[in-house]
Amino acid sequence: MEQPILDQWTAFSVLLAKISGYREAIGLLHWDLRTGAPRKGTEIRSKTIGMLSGELFKLETSPEMGRFTELFSQPEINSQLTDVQRKIVKDCRKEYERSKSIPPEKYEEYAILAAQTETMWETAKENNDFASFEPWLSRIVAFKQEFIDYWGVKGTRYDTLLDMYEPDLTVEKLDDIFSRLRSRLVPLAEQIAASPNKPNGDILNGTFDKEAQEKFGLFILKQMGYDFDAGRLDESVHPFATGLNPGDVRITTNYLPDNVTSSIFSSLHEGGHALYEQNIDKNLVGTPLAQGASMGIHESQSRLWENMIGRSREFWHRYYGDLKQNFPETFKDVEAEDFYRSINRVENSLIRIEADELTYNLHIIIRYEIEKLIFNEGLTVKELPEVWNSKYKEYLGITPPSDSLGVLQDVHWSGGDFGYFASYSLGNMYAAQILHTLRKELPEFDSQVSSGNLLPIKEWLTDKIYRYGMSETPSQIIERVTGEPLNPDYLADYLEAKYRDIYHLEQAE
Amino acid sequence: MEQPILDQWTAFSVLLAKISGYREAIGLLHWDLRTGAPRKGTEIRSKTIGMLSGELFKLETSPEMGRFTELFSQPEINSQLTDVQRKIVKDCRKEYERSKSIPPEKYEEYAILAAQTETMWETAKENNDFASFEPWLSRIVAFKQEFIDYWGVKGTRYDTLLDMYEPDLTVEKLDDIFSRLRSRLVPLAEQIAASPNKPNGDILNGTFDKEAQEKFGLFILKQMGYDFDAGRLDESVHPFATGLNPGDVRITTNYLPDNVTSSIFSSLHEGGHALYEQNIDKNLVGTPLAQGASMGIHESQSRLWENMIGRSREFWHRYYGDLKQNFPETFKDVEAEDFYRSINRVENSLIRIEADELTYNLHIIIRYEIEKLIFNEGLTVKELPEVWNSKYKEYLGITPPSDSLGVLQDVHWSGGDFGYFASYSLGNMYAAQILHTLRKELPEFDSQVSSGNLLPIKEWLTDKIYRYGMSETPSQIIERVTGEPLNPDYLADYLEAKYRDIYHLEQAE
Repeated sequence: MEQPILDQWTAFSVLLAKISGYREAIGLLHWDLRTGAPRKGTEIRSKTIGMLSGELFKLETSPEMGRFTELFSQPEINSQLTDVQRKIVKDCRKEYERSKSIPPEKYEEYAILAAQTETMWETAKENNDFASFEPWLSRIVAFKQEFIDYWGVKGTRYDTLLDMYEPDLTVEKLDDIFSRLRSRLVPLAEQIAASPNKPNGDILNGTFDKEAQEKFGLFILKQMGYDFDAGRLDESVHPFATGLNPGDVRITTNYLPDNVTSSIFSSLHEGGHALYEQNIDKNLVGTPLAQGASMGIHESQSRLWENMIGRSREFWHRYYGDLKQNFPETFKDVEAEDFYRSINRVENSLIRIEADELTYNLHIIIRYEIEKLIFNEGLTVKELPEVWNSKYKEYLGITPPSDSLGVLQDVHWSGGDFGYFASYSLGNMYAAQILHTLRKELPEFDSQVSSGNLLPIKEWLTDKIYRYGMSETPSQIIERVTGEPLNPDYLADYLEAKYRDIYHLEQAE
Repeated sequence: MEQPILDQWTAFSVLLAKISGYREAIGLLHWDLRTGAPRKGTEIRSKTIGMLSGELFKLETSPEMGRFTELFSQPEINSQLTDVQRKIVKDCRKEYERSKSIPPEKYEEYAILAAQTETMWETAKENNDFASFEPWLSRIVAFKQEFIDYWGVKGTRYDTLLDMYEPDLTVEKLDDIFSRLRSRLVPLAEQIAASPNKPNGDILNGTFDKEAQEKFGLFILKQMGYDFDAGRLDESVHPFATGLNPGDVRITTNYLPDNVTSSIFSSLHEGGHALYEQNIDKNLVGTPLAQGASMGIHESQSRLWENMIGRSREFWHRYYGDLKQNFPETFKDVEAEDFYRSINRVENSLIRIEADELTYNLHIIIRYEIEKLIFNEGLTVKELPEVWNSKYKEYLGITPPSDSLGVLQDVHWSGGDFGYFASYSLGNMYAAQILHTLRKELPEFDSQVSSGNLLPIKEWLTDKIYRYGMSETPSQIIERVTGEPLNPDYLADYLEAKYRDIYHLEQAE
């Protein structure tokens, strides 16, 4: 790199490090609010978070950011950059242009509306009152439609929203992927529903001491290779993982007194997110690439650990004894195989966040299809409950008895997060495809899991995925690691094999 | 207030609230670092704190701050402000001018040197090697001398430093105050040393379960009226209190396995600091006045609770039974009176932070006199050990066997904190003077303490001191509350009465 360019890059790096510092501070203020900040300080705290978020936004859209990203985008200068530097410039420029394209007063109006709409949603959900919520959500949708025009449409209008969460994936690609996935999962779910060989969920009932749950969770996290010198485990109402910096990636869980599997699987899930961020290459620290590649890739790492490893027969072959030792009374007459089967029960249910590994994807496909109808086909907010209920009937065979248990169940839309849901199911598909390669490249995978030798798995994931952070796009990662683009068949194959075994299903013709 | 002025004030308030927000964020980042941040994240964390502190400094010295404080200082506009508003303007202007008077590159050079000198101090203390530390500390002193010239001298040069921590108090006043105090405490300490009626410290020896210490500390804090909905108690190596906002004032303590009084008195001490900040008037929130009036006044509130209440016979009349219940083995043969006497042992010792209520002040007077010699009389850093040792011999009758136990014991000077030490002793004097008024205005004081009815005391302190925050100066507060300026005789009277009783001393002639 020529010296003057190098000097400019150094100056740009200072701006990037400052942005990372603001993110760290905001992250800690949030973490603290959710893990133990005293009640009377939360009102001011929320304002402080808002103020600092505004300062961060100013930095990301500052004239300096505009000048640097324009400079480094010039072909003759861009060609002197490394791949990582080019990705930084590209991402920052994209974010800069997206943010600058909306008039600030318009965005502020929207931010206030979104906060109010979230409150309206809470009340509407509580009172099962979609009608009162409808005008609010309609205004959110109208804003989003306007923003799509500001941002510019490539492909369909809904593509513009998807691009915010999962770059590279378009409606065209997702239509194909989701319809292939749906066509295999719907019949599988039907076969399971019809199977007489149902696992017994009752064996999981019991009363579970919090200290014992915590002890077991800490044990499992250490087994996964979660580094407690670069993180900590706390409690919060909704479990989450937050990477303040790569040496400080924290997770939380929630201990339910009558359900031990909840804290176990949330620890595995958040632990998966955290392993990703703890193992990002140190060279990316202080840049915007020191985070997960996308919502979907991040979710793939949490679900790989939670479901594909943590809900496997091999895993419980190794760890069921430890669990039993912690809760000898509850599990004294329960065999490992019965435990394994019951944590993998499949039920066509109404609520996404309570869904099992299989039907979860159907909940997502329904949301994806509805969002697409809203933004590409002009479906009105008023029509949502009817469409929602008919799709639940079609894909899951059940009809929500109320909007609270139906279209009002998720917070996302009230906050304007359209295009986000797909990431959850993409996470499952990425995970299954990565698992397929992992099994090929680590032929000892099954025996490693069943002997609790999990570190080689963490090493492999670090080498193939974690260390890259956001320096590659999701599609670059999935193609480099697995040798092909995203393919929903891996998830369908995985789920079919798993559930045919558990439910003793006949091979479909 | 005229409308255009009101609009300007509103804009100024936004800047002030932003400054408060930065302080809250930096406060939390610090708190987290000292209570449980994972080890591997601390390096980046420290950089983040440095970055945000730099941003805060920029706001405090911003052109807007200059413009607003200049505008509101104009007599015809200033006269339209409330007293609180005038104090805000005055404090902000003072801080602005002080900061602007030093060239930024000069200040940066100093900040780097101060950080390095702290590290050098650690090593020098560990190795008892004053010679290696001397050139570093000399450079710090040279910088401070230069800063005094930038800031401008009113009175003596050392006054300029004192003014940073305790406005209103000058060398002239402090010379008088400290010499009067010294002339009464030195003979008292000598009488005590000569007394045959020494409390038995051995009765405090034991092994103390951490959970029981924590339980007792929480109980005492609740008794004081510390609001756990507006704070929390955590552990850290060195106990501290930090007010993130008035609804979030946190304290920490440290549980020693072989010493239960350490955590009790640090909880009372930090609890005293915290009561102050929890009870600042809500109207001051978001302004720079939502903090303690000065280092000295803050310290008066911690020491009033720790020593004057917490080490009183009445306090343990009420709470010794609870302590005994928590540690029945250790204290089974110990009477409340013996416990009271042994927590009030006086010993001429070498280390300030381990000193008792009486001799502590002599440690401070020594430091005050030495700092004055450095800045007003040209005492060189090289001469410090000799002067230090001779003053310890003179006032405390002991000579440090090494510099590590002498002139190298405190961190303050290495970080450039000259003028700070006086605050500790001022805290004791303010506290005794306030206590004198408190006893007059709450005649039931003794019986309230001995029956554990501490809330009226908290209410009185709130009404007289806490709620004002920084909206009055230390001398305004002490004169309004007690009807006279700071008078060291109250502390001397208090200590004489207390220790004559404990050590069965004859009344001095």
